[in-house]
This record gives sequence, structure tokens and C-alpha cells, in this order.
Amino acid sequence: MGKERLVVIGGDAAGMSAASQARRLRDDLDIVVFERGPHTSYAACGIPYYVGGLVQEWRALVARTPDEFRRQGIDACVRHEVTEIDPEGRRVRVRNLETGDAWWEPYDHLLIATGALPVRPAVPGADAEGIYGVHTLESGIHLRQIVDEGKARRVVIVGGGYIGLEMAEAMCLRDLETSLVQRGPQVMNTLDPDMGALVSDAIRGIGITLYLGEEVIAFDVKDGRLRAVITDKRELPADMAILGMGVRPNTELARAAGIPLGVKGAIRVNERMQTEVAGIWAAGDCAEVFHLVSRRPAHIPLGTTANKQGRVAGLNLGGRHATFPGVVGTAVSKICSLEVARTGLQEKEIAELGLEFVSATVKSRTRAGYYPGAGTITVKVLAEKGTGRFLGGQIVGTEGAAKRIDVMAVALHAGMTVDEMIHLDLSYAPPFSPVWDPVLTAVRQIVKEV
Amino acid sequence: MGKERLVVIGGDAAGMSAASQARRLRDDLDIVVFERGPHTSYAACGIPYYVGGLVQEWRALVARTPDEFRRQGIDACVRHEVTEIDPEGRRVRVRNLETGDAWWEPYDHLLIATGALPVRPAVPGADAEGIYGVHTLESGIHLRQIVDEGKARRVVIVGGGYIGLEMAEAMCLRDLETSLVQRGPQVMNTLDPDMGALVSDAIRGIGITLYLGEEVIAFDVKDGRLRAVITDKRELPADMAILGMGVRPNTELARAAGIPLGVKGAIRVNERMQTEVAGIWAAGDCAEVFHLVSRRPAHIPLGTTANKQGRVAGLNLGGRHATFPGVVGTAVSKICSLEVARTGLQEKEIAELGLEFVSATVKSRTRAGYYPGAGTITVKVLAEKGTGRFLGGQIVGTEGAAKRIDVMAVALHAGMTVDEMIHLDLSYAPPFSPVWDPVLTAVRQIVKEV
Repeated sequence: MGKERLVVIGGDAAGMSAASQARRLRDDLDIVVFERGPHTSYAACGIPYYVGGLVQEWRALVARTPDEFRRQGIDACVRHEVTEIDPEGRRVRVRNLETGDAWWEPYDHLLIATGALPVRPAVPGADAEGIYGVHTLESGIHLRQIVDEGKARRVVIVGGGYIGLEMAEAMCLRDLETSLVQRGPQVMNTLDPDMGALVSDAIRGIGITLYLGEEVIAFDVKDGRLRAVITDKRELPADMAILGMGVRPNTELARAAGIPLGVKGAIRVNERMQTEVAGIWAAGDCAEVFHLVSRRPAHIPLGTTANKQGRVAGLNLGGRHATFPGVVGTAVSKICSLEVARTGLQEKEIAELGLEFVSATVKSRTRAGYYPGAGTITVKVLAEKGTGRFLGGQIVGTEGAAKRIDVMAVALHAGMTVDEMIHLDLSYAPPFSPVWDPVLTAVRQIVKEV
Repeated sequence: MGKERLVVIGGDAAGMSAASQARRLRDDLDIVVFERGPHTSYAACGIPYYVGGLVQEWRALVARTPDEFRRQGIDACVRHEVTEIDPEGRRVRVRNLETGDAWWEPYDHLLIATGALPVRPAVPGADAEGIYGVHTLESGIHLRQIVDEGKARRVVIVGGGYIGLEMAEAMCLRDLETSLVQRGPQVMNTLDPDMGALVSDAIRGIGITLYLGEEVIAFDVKDGRLRAVITDKRELPADMAILGMGVRPNTELARAAGIPLGVKGAIRVNERMQTEVAGIWAAGDCAEVFHLVSRRPAHIPLGTTANKQGRVAGLNLGGRHATFPGVVGTAVSKICSLEVARTGLQEKEIAELGLEFVSATVKSRTRAGYYPGAGTITVKVLAEKGTGRFLGGQIVGTEGAAKRIDVMAVALHAGMTVDEMIHLDLSYAPPFSPVWDPVLTAVRQIVKEV
């Protein structure tokens, strides 16, 4: 009898974490990974820094190459696309994108780790040349090349999520004339608008033109190439447009195979990362994740979660019993001179759950007042009215936002009330914090409102 | 009938927090504070930065002056020493240090906030001129003056706790020939020796001479002035010695009045900050604090805790019912280019409790590998063998130690096991962390040992 065989679709964070973990635990398993692109296991989060020139070599973004995986006993096949899953026959249809050859590849266990795709606006011209998503290393390498060659002068970023903002900053750093169109009232709509406004200000401060409350209604295209981005209010001439409207799970393959999908079309999975079809697992940006604060499944595509889900899938495929309990919605980004962080639920998410809430926002210093280099930091906290259950927080500051959002994240994991958070024994020294940490100051404030 | 009267002994963090809080809540209370020194409410933690020249003006360290407190309706009397407490008669003996006048001052409520005193080695010459503690703003101003005037060339720091280390760095910054004598095997004995060694290396790296495993046995004194520090191994000529052996609670006054003392001579208090004598409260560095991990009272003098305890005492004195549950042993310091942080119990503390433990130490990067400016960070975690209960952690790194120790502190408050910590949803972006936060990497490691 031959060895059991694990097939992984997708060679980035989730897929390769799972493959590596399973490899470590089981010798008696053939592991083959099919990746459509030319790269494996790269840091997608690093692409804006590569395009912006802060990172010089794209190879620095690659954690492990296909060759390195092969030496580990993982058959990593790049430029191979899986075009169909046959759950009955336990096989997938694979096409070698170099040769055009196609065949059925059998599996005992299948892991879907197909990631996410950038959302494209459903408007005329959206497929024109010059409109780019930033979701693969290939796309990042291509963008950097265009900028290096001086082929673009004016760039319009469509959408002010964190990738849009990081790319806007990168383009600005490369001296391109950069503007950003955002449908909502402020950029960064994973923050409440009052906190998002601080980020909008920072973006304007480095010379990016913001068009808030505007919608892209078309792309002006000539000879297949972008000429301008057209909003409901104006026409913005552009040599290049970058999509920053967020991503959607890449699950067409799973849907076609009858694998049940959930929130926003992400693949439904249990705590062990199993789909509802026997022998098929899913992990990463293509899969649902349980939100420990809303107590509902969600789709929150992030590299950290992809790694954790991949690891858990790999442990299970390696014969262990492992579970991934879920996330609390933590995210951080560096935008211009600001650290921007959030965790838990924001106001609109709390309202969607039908909960009553209170909030408090405090502006503080990042260090002791007398210690040189202190900046400002704004901390917002949200709690359930009545019970005082801590529901989430948002932080925008010159430093220390990443530090402090993690304090809140752990408090959410522990299900703390704001009352319980008042006396948290957080570290203090003049270079790092005022005596009353801004998180504690905010918590002291909100306790009065509960 | 006259107003009720609150007398506070000690005008720094704990005393003034309590006075301010009580003032806000009750108009019908006379509040008088007696402070032996000339200053109120100053940032003792900032003294090394003032002496080192990073902070130019000592006034920057004063949060509020006696005049400011008086405008708030708090009668803050500086240069007034309380020399006796009469709990039966509900009065304290006060002496005006300027005029020499003395009198009995009646109280309805008394708060003892007398702080701590530097430990002096019980060796010959320890009272000579030229040997300084750093526990009051006055002492800091005096030290800075001596250095500014160029009166000292060689300084010996006795003791490698965080104040000793911060002062050693300050002296080194001021171009004094600086050495440090430490009895233990490494500096910073609130860390395990393996982690303390990283700090010892950093101290040596800026040109400070370390004498580890050496004990001061005498001070060589001539005409009442220090000439040299004598250890069990050598004689170190010195124009100045600075005590960095830690502090002990300043509770002679309380002891003489028959107020029960506890750990290390600190005043015993309950969760509301009441002593065991009716009408008498205590808060800050002179008081015990409950340790939430060891579940025992402890003496851990820190500005943050003093502020929290003072606030709770003030709330209670103001008519509310407030409690201070305790601390988990968090502390952070910036030593040379390193952030040094700890929380929970260290190995020797765990051993004292008779618990069996496991540990894991990982060395990681502070940012994504490809992101410029990444440094190294070493994270150690400790957990109870068998149960996996998280017991504490220590972090030494070029950046991000303060950030990460707070994650551990909240986990300790929540009583998490290391198993529960593995999937903490901590923030990730390339400028702030590798995808697997070093804390999570350490936790993944220790889980295998439990």
C-alpha cells in the first residue's frame, strides 16, 4: 500500500505552514503543494515597503523558496494551477502553467489555502491595463518595476483600507503625485470615523490628496490602457490606479466543488480547520474565522491568522488534535508617522449585534511628560452598557499603539470587564509611558459611563 | 461641629493621589498634607534622566507644586515632618523644619504615605559625605549639581538594581569614570541570571566597569568624606558612591505607633488600603501589596502602584467603596540601548513557593526580517509544570520589550495557561513584529515542556 497523500492548494502562509507542520509530524505522508504563481511563502504584508523602496530586494520577502521546501520533503510545485476539485473521487485537476499539461492528482487529504483576491469595483474599464491589485508578490514586483522605470507620474489609490493607505504612502515616498478616493467619510473604515479622521489628517500631511465620500464610477480607458479615474464628483487623470478596497476570499474553486461557504463567501471551517466535506480542510484568507467577541464567524484576512490556522491544520493533518479558537479582530498598521491599531468590535459592528454600548476617548502622551521625544496618542475604548464587558478599542499615536492594542486584545481573550481592567499592572518607565498608561486612563473614563 | 479632617503624611505619588481623589469627592473634608522635603508630587523615576542631562530642568519632574495643591483646596505643607503618631488620641506630632515649631495635629482619618528609603550597606563609613541615595528630588538636584560643577571624576555605584543601573548610565553619559559593584552573579536580580547577563553585557558595552559577585565591605573615609569603596576583592578609589541596592519601606513612624507591619517591614493593608488600626490608612512604597500570582502579600515599591493605591485610598476616604486587587510584578526599564522588562514570578520566587516549573527562552527579531532597523529580543517564559499555568516572563531587547511584557501581565491577571496563550490575537505589521510574535514563539516552545 502506498503512502497517504496530502495535497495543498496555495503555497503562501497558510498552505506552507500546514505543509511544514504536517511534514515535521509524519514521515509516512506524501505532501505536494500546487501554487499558481512563481513564489512560495512570501510576506505579502511587506509588498508596500518593497514598492516604496524601504526594502531593496524582493527576495528578502520570501521566507522559503520551492527548493528549500523540496529539501524538507515537500513537493512545492509553482506555476501549477488547480482548476477543479473532485471530492467524490478525492482528486484535483492540475494544470502546469508552463507546459499546459493537465492531469488528475489524487489525494487522501486536501487543504485549500487559496487566499484572497482584491475587490475590483464593478464599473466600466475596471479590467484595463494600469489598474493593479496588490495581493501577490508578482504584482508587487511588477509595480515596483513600473515605478523604477519612471513610467508613471500620477497614481490614484482606490479605497482607503490599510493596503490602500500603505500603498499611497509608498507611492508618495517614490515621488509620484498621489491621490486616494474613499467612499466612506474617512479612510480606514475598520476604525470608527472619529479615529479614522486622525489617519486622514496624517495622509494629507505627507501631501496625498484625499477625496472622501466619493465613489469611483468608471475608469477612462484608451487602447486598453487607463487614462483617468472617474468619481461621482470629478475626473482624476492617472497613469496608474491601485486597488485598496479590501479583498474577498478566493473560493470559486471550493464553491464549484460544492464545499459549503459562509460569511462573505469564505469557506466554512470548524475549530480544527475542517470544511464540511470529508477529507477537505481550509485555512488562511480563503477561510472563515470565529470572532471571539461577537461569537460569530467572520472573514478577517490577515497574515498572522493565516499562519495560525495553517499551523493548526498541519498539526491535525500530522495526527495531533489541535484547535484554533478564533480571533478578537486585532490589526495594526504604520501609516506615515502614525501607528494605527484596532481590536475587538468597532461601533458599527456592535450596533449590528444589537448591543448597547458606551465609549470613551482620551488623548495622552506616549512617554512621561518630561521625557524627550514624547508624542501624542489617542485611545478609544468601547464597552457594553450595563455589564461593562470590554468590547474593543482603537489607538492612533506616534508610538506605542501596537504595544497597547495587544493589552486590549488579551483583555478581550480573557473576557474582562472594564472594571477589571482599571488595575492592570502594566509596565511603566518614563521612556515608554506616562505613569497612568493611556489605556488605563481611557478605561478609568469609560467606567464612569457604564 | 467642625469639618472632618484628613491628615496625609508624605506628599508624593500615593499621598497626593489620595488627597486629590478625596478632594474631588468630598467638600466637607479638611485635607492637610505634611511633607518633610521641599517638593510635592514629583516623578522620582525621572531623577536619573535629570542627573544624566536628558531632562534639563528639575521643575519638569514636578507634577504639581504645593501652591497648585493649595488652590485645589489641599493644604500641602512642605518642610514639615511628622515625628509621632498617636492612634488613641487620633493626632500626629508635627514639626516645622524651618521654624522648629512643633505641635499635635488632630485627624479623623490618617493616610501614611511615607514611601521608601534606600538600603544602606551595614558597613563602616556608610554615612560618609559623598555617599548618596537617589530617592528624593532633593537628592537628585544635589547629585546633578555635583556633576555639573565637575567636582567628581570617579563614581562607584553600589548595587545593580534598576535605579543603580539607570544612575550608572546617567553618570557614564556625564563622562564620569563609572564602575558598579554587584553582590549577585549578574546585575538586575529581578531577572533570572541568564537574562540579567544580557543587561550586564549592555552595561559593559557603554564603558562601565562591572564587578560582579563582589560585596562592599567598607567605605574608606577621610575627614568625613568618601575616598574609596572597598569590596571583598579590591579597593575602588571614588569621589562619589551612589546606592543602588534597592529600597526598604519607610515605616519607623508606623512601627513606633504600633501599626502592624508585614513583608519586609511594609505596612499591612487590606484591599481598601486600611491598616489594622482604626482610622489609619497606608498607600505607596511604605505599604504591602498583594501579589496576584504568588497569592501572597509582597513589597514591590513602584510609582505606578503608588498612584493606584493612592487613588483607591482616596476613593475610600471620599466615601466610595474601592479596592485594589494587587499587582502581578510588572516592571520595565531602559538600560543603555536595551529595554528590560519582567512580570510575574522569576525562577527563585517560584522555587520559594515550592512550585515545579518549566521555562523556555527564545531569541527573535523585533520586526519582520526584511524591515529595516530590526534588532534582537530575548523572551523567557515560565509556567507551572503539569498545569501549564503561566507564571511569569522576562524580556530583554532593543525595542518592544515594554510592549510585550504587558501582554504577559494581562495574561497573568487573567490566570491563563500557556496553552491558552498560544493563539492570542496579537497585532502584527512588519515594522512592529515578526508574523509570530516572539511572545507567541516562546509560548509555543514552553507548551512542549509542560
